[in-house]
Parts: sequence; C-alpha cells; structure tokens
Amino acid sequence: MFFNGKNLYIEWHEATIPWLKIFAAEPRKELTDCSERTLADLWSAVLICERTMREHYKPDKINVASFGNRLARVHIHIMARFEDDSHFPEPMWGQRQRADRPTQIDRAAFEAKLIAALKQADI
Amino acid sequence: MFFNGKNLYIEWHEATIPWLKIFAAEPRKELTDCSERTLADLWSAVLICERTMREHYKPDKINVASFGNRLARVHIHIMARFEDDSHFPEPMWGQRQRADRPTQIDRAAFEAKLIAALKQADI
Repeated sequence: MFFNGKNLYIEWHEATIPWLKIFAAEPRKELTDCSERTLADLWSAVLICERTMREHYKPDKINVASFGNRLARVHIHIMARFEDDSHFPEPMWGQRQRADRPTQIDRAAFEAKLIAALKQADI
Repeated sequence: MFFNGKNLYIEWHEATIPWLKIFAAEPRKELTDCSERTLADLWSAVLICERTMREHYKPDKINVASFGNRLARVHIHIMARFEDDSHFPEPMWGQRQRADRPTQIDRAAFEAKLIAALKQADI
C-alpha cells in the first residue's frame, strides 16, 4: 500500500505493466454495498489514476476492471496498456500474445505525482 | 440498443450470462477524455445497472470492466456472474472453466426495470 486515504487505499499489482489496485477501505462485496462517500472517492480515484498514468506512462490504452470473484472485497484494477505488452489487445486476464515488455516501471516519480493529485482532491 | 439516454446508450452483449455494455454517446477513447456530464452519467448508470442486475438476477458477483483495446470508444461491461457459469471465478476473458449455464436470460422484464430506474435518475 503506498496510498492510504479516508475511504480507499491503493496498491501496486506486481506486473510488467503499470497496474494499480484501488481498494475500498470498508470491506464490501459489491460497489452498490459501499457508502455514497466511498463510491464518490472510488470514482474520483479511478479518474485521477487514469489521468496520472496517461501523463506519466503515455500508454496506448487504459484498462479498468472490478471483478472480485475470488476476493469478494471491492477493488478496482487500473492498468496502463501498450501495444507491445504481453497481452495486448487482449485483457490482462486473456491469452498471452507475446513476451513481457522489458521496460522498467518507474514507480517513485509516478507515486509522488499520484499522491499529490489524490491529496489535492481530498481523497 | 435498448436504452438511449442523453449521454450514453446501453446494449446487450450476446452471452449466456446477463451482460450489458454501456457506451458513452460521445466517441472518446478514454474515460478521462469524456465530458464531466458524460462521466457522471456513466458512473450513475454503472451503479444502476449493478443494482438492477442484483435485484433481478441474484448473481453471485457483479463484474465491471472497461477495456476498449480493439474498439477505442469508451464502453463499460457489466456482467452478472454465477458460480456455475462458463468462466467463474475467472473473468469472462479468462479461461473457460465449464460448459455454459443452460439458463434462459429473461431480458424483457429486466429491461423494463432498468429503463425505469435510469429514467428516474434522469439519465
């Protein structure tokens, strides 16, 4: 966990693309089980993560997903996708298309930008 | 298309589970390219679709995803998942786990409920 807000926290997912997971702080199964305040912050955080990933990593596409079929606790995946990544154009849960990108993911500078944007939005 | 709102429209995805696609009316690549109004309606529609699916289909889990790696136009998938469906607990883009559910999807009664809820929310 590198960000711990009032109603949500954010972790990296170990992967060869920039991949974040936003967790609702309250342990709920579905989005519609969450409080209004948590839902508002989740949506704002999704958009802030997307915007910051686009600026920082210049991906070809952003992917967003909320499944929780194994871990029934609300969490949202935000992935920066590249045309030469391991699965593109398949979702990261689909069939592998090629070898991993060799790119190093610069986490520290991105985290600083993201945390600043989240704090500015009072999340 | 069975619902055409001010800023979005909704289609069924042909599948053996209840599966909707919410499209932004404005042709944008990423969520953060959409107008504030479209974003607000998309998020409300996601929650209304989830709530109506839960009430009507009693799924084991709702899945939500926005990829657009092939069709770079903002659209959000909302899926009602069941423990005995073809892919559970994998996402619908993952590896098939078993045969399709034989269940008939009752669309008409669900559509009526969903459209009423969307109209009530002024979407």
